[in-house]
Amino acid sequence: MDKKAFQDYYPDDVAHCYGCGHLNEHGHQIKSRWDGDEAVCTFRPQPYHTSFVGYAYGGLVASLIDCHSMGTAAAAWMRANGLEIGEVPTARFVTGSLKVDYLKPTPIDCELVIRARATEVGERKVIVDSKVLANGVVTAKGHTIAVRMPDHLVAKMTESGAR
Amino acid sequence: MDKKAFQDYYPDDVAHCYGCGHLNEHGHQIKSRWDGDEAVCTFRPQPYHTSFVGYAYGGLVASLIDCHSMGTAAAAWMRANGLEIGEVPTARFVTGSLKVDYLKPTPIDCELVIRARATEVGERKVIVDSKVLANGVVTAKGHTIAVRMPDHLVAKMTESGAR
Repeated sequence: MDKKAFQDYYPDDVAHCYGCGHLNEHGHQIKSRWDGDEAVCTFRPQPYHTSFVGYAYGGLVASLIDCHSMGTAAAAWMRANGLEIGEVPTARFVTGSLKVDYLKPTPIDCELVIRARATEVGERKVIVDSKVLANGVVTAKGHTIAVRMPDHLVAKMTESGAR
Repeated sequence: MDKKAFQDYYPDDVAHCYGCGHLNEHGHQIKSRWDGDEAVCTFRPQPYHTSFVGYAYGGLVASLIDCHSMGTAAAAWMRANGLEIGEVPTARFVTGSLKVDYLKPTPIDCELVIRARATEVGERKVIVDSKVLANGVVTAKGHTIAVRMPDHLVAKMTESGAR
């Protein structure tokens, strides 16, 4: 797998996301990489990411699916357009819709693996299906619709907030 | 509105959730209360809960919808059964499925209001629809399927994790 993750290529102006921004020192800083046609990231929950004691809370699972899927959407879109992530122009996607099916409780005391696949890649929309594994067992499935951000909107959003 | 929130009535054994447990000192500790037929909670994001600078990350929005909807499911189930939350036996729900539609970016620098309504209350399943408002504008909509936990499973889960 590529040593650099998708998120390592995010321009600094759009690298502040709590879930996946490499410039957010408080956040999860997830790292997504290609593994064949799937994108993979791993995450070790903190002890306080509890739902019921011993299990990870659903919001964390949703966050990991969300950010990993947006990274996957960007990388898949670029690949479909003959580019690899890291090349310019960089595509950036935001979540239009996120659906998580919680199949069983997700243990908190192990490394979680999130595997995602772009199942439909359009010009402006990418659909990403994913699963969360704990100790090799699928505990949740994700279905996200990623929407490509126009460059001018990215610029507007990064200008309008406090830095 | 009731001064005590739904989550204030959660038994201590199941009050460790990062999103809504009153015993999780690291977590969001959201508080949900009835406002007529709707349940309402408010949340002020921290500056580091960023997506793009100036906006809240999607995982936070999903977490707030998730936990607020589970509290609403429990309270609505009890009401449908002639009880009010706080009376015993306390019903407890977990998320079977969570869907979030992100309608527009959610500003980070204001209090967010989450309003939820149980649209279907069954014996074992409650459907909750919700919306997130920032400065009075709906930025996201949630649709959750809440599943009632059997008492013995709650007991098993609280026994199996580290305390």
